[in-house]
Amino acid sequence: MEAPVTPSDFTTDKPILSLINIDLLVQVTHTTLLHPLGAWMLPLSLRALTFQYHHPPLWGSILYAVIVTLYWLLQQLNKRLAYGVNREFDKTEEVLVITGGASGLGLLIAQIYGMRGLSVAVLDVNEPEFDVQNVEFYKCDAGNYEEVKAVSKRVIEELGQPTVLINNAAIAHGKTILDLEVSEIQSTFNSNVLSNFWTIKEFLPGMIEAKRGTIVTISSVLAQIGPKQCADYAASKAALRLLHESLTAEVAEYPNIKTILVCPGQISTPLFDGLETPSTFFAPVLEPVDVAKEIMNAIDSGSAGTLELPLYARWIAVMHVLPVSIQRLLRWWSGCDQAMKTFRGRRPTDSMNGKH
Amino acid sequence: MEAPVTPSDFTTDKPILSLINIDLLVQVTHTTLLHPLGAWMLPLSLRALTFQYHHPPLWGSILYAVIVTLYWLLQQLNKRLAYGVNREFDKTEEVLVITGGASGLGLLIAQIYGMRGLSVAVLDVNEPEFDVQNVEFYKCDAGNYEEVKAVSKRVIEELGQPTVLINNAAIAHGKTILDLEVSEIQSTFNSNVLSNFWTIKEFLPGMIEAKRGTIVTISSVLAQIGPKQCADYAASKAALRLLHESLTAEVAEYPNIKTILVCPGQISTPLFDGLETPSTFFAPVLEPVDVAKEIMNAIDSGSAGTLELPLYARWIAVMHVLPVSIQRLLRWWSGCDQAMKTFRGRRPTDSMNGKH
Repeated sequence: MEAPVTPSDFTTDKPILSLINIDLLVQVTHTTLLHPLGAWMLPLSLRALTFQYHHPPLWGSILYAVIVTLYWLLQQLNKRLAYGVNREFDKTEEVLVITGGASGLGLLIAQIYGMRGLSVAVLDVNEPEFDVQNVEFYKCDAGNYEEVKAVSKRVIEELGQPTVLINNAAIAHGKTILDLEVSEIQSTFNSNVLSNFWTIKEFLPGMIEAKRGTIVTISSVLAQIGPKQCADYAASKAALRLLHESLTAEVAEYPNIKTILVCPGQISTPLFDGLETPSTFFAPVLEPVDVAKEIMNAIDSGSAGTLELPLYARWIAVMHVLPVSIQRLLRWWSGCDQAMKTFRGRRPTDSMNGKH
Repeated sequence: MEAPVTPSDFTTDKPILSLINIDLLVQVTHTTLLHPLGAWMLPLSLRALTFQYHHPPLWGSILYAVIVTLYWLLQQLNKRLAYGVNREFDKTEEVLVITGGASGLGLLIAQIYGMRGLSVAVLDVNEPEFDVQNVEFYKCDAGNYEEVKAVSKRVIEELGQPTVLINNAAIAHGKTILDLEVSEIQSTFNSNVLSNFWTIKEFLPGMIEAKRGTIVTISSVLAQIGPKQCADYAASKAALRLLHESLTAEVAEYPNIKTILVCPGQISTPLFDGLETPSTFFAPVLEPVDVAKEIMNAIDSGSAGTLELPLYARWIAVMHVLPVSIQRLLRWWSGCDQAMKTFRGRRPTDSMNGKH
């Protein structure tokens, strides 16, 4: 079980070279060479060195900066057209509900928002092992509608109408279809999918009334690639992708209700303990704090959209356009069907519901 | 309720022009101009007219025919590499199980296979209203594991080990998340998703032992586009896509166990009665008999793979690669979020489970 967040959680003792991966390189490029601010540095510097406008280095670098700027503007326009104007996020008035918030990614997000002064309700079957400021624990199996209904009443009475709902509860069993127990398959769909319907049913009407709200759905890259020993988990995460899409269409008439879909790759949390990643350069294992930061940035900015991380998650859609034999080859190369062989999952002493 | 298949089911009284759509045009092109046999007709004809090889019409048409032939060969190679060698399909020895076979697409497939002499077991909560040769009805809620377990024993005893399993049972409610009853959401996932796990658990081990089997999963184009009033249905169908993918990976070690995924667009069956299609040229409403034919062709040939029909279903993957604002525009143009407004679904007198 994790301890409360301390500054050391944001540092690491890993060798520095192991931290270099394609995501880092691309991120650095995007905030320097491929960002308008970075791109305009070059012509400005050349001009400061008294280059003339007809000199190829100067007009070449201006042309480059113009292209980068246009591309950047198109990206902003794209987001604006797709997701509309951001909603206002007033941290003094927001109330946050997170399912599966007693461990892993959920706990981390609850802790950070709690420390920042928001009222946070954690819904989980297991109690977190320590108290955090502003974080209230509500014992609740999010996969059970009656429990969600009862707890949601208490949350609204005690903390006020929730304006941010993070559906994070999830379980994984890591078995083949034939090895899975009937009860395990049922629990996967209850905890991972139906829980989202229950919390939306209970909290969305109040958000519509309050004229603001953000609903975060935590899916997975496995929603688009179903490996061996993951049929129930991948199917449940795929269901969440489409639930998010339909939900987004249904709340489109309320411009201040935002929906965010999160599709992370492997996160180093107990849920997928033991899983081996074939290439940590192309498919780095995510740190919970990095995923939490991305999700909180999206919530804080009041935006809607899809977060796919690490980078390879964004390329899965492209893979699906390729001929099936190439898809098969890429799949073999990714090693995804072998990855679960070493799966141990959360050990018996870990909480049994709701954590990534 | 449909009557047994008669020759008139394969004809139509619609005006002939309404039958012309993009799917028909593409199909005709693919079996003529874009098929090697068709492409080689032109140079052969020109040669018969005594054109010389250095004449542009002759060498041009040869070049065209060579390109078409190479493309055709690549397609065959692609399929072979992705899905392996077809399994043998011996219709005298195959036993077929179909869930939701009491109406719609399921009934049609059961009828045709029954008439062709296969042993067919229909699993449905409702009895078909007429008897068909070789088709046995087993009353069973496929979403309930205990019922599937009991019925599967009887099927194996009475008809023999099933070698073809068609998971076709499905229900749709056509309501927004907030309007859906809790029991409706549960029934969607039980009937549409969990039923597949239950039948696979019961029938796959025998297929592995018999060293042959075909498992057909009926998903939907809605597995990749979640419209308004379809959150539960779209989510359930997305889950099936990924279940199929994981299942395919899990049976890959048995070369004679084949998996087929079917993603049809709107079919003119009671399940989606009242739904309006924005463009019958680009998105024609499918006739059940056309979908049944495609599925039966795939089963009979002993192949594996994905059937996406009509044509636009194959372009949805491409849509997901485009910028989100363009996706939004295409979505608006498709009218998918308006389509369900006129949804009536199956009327109370229709069967309540398991039909498309």
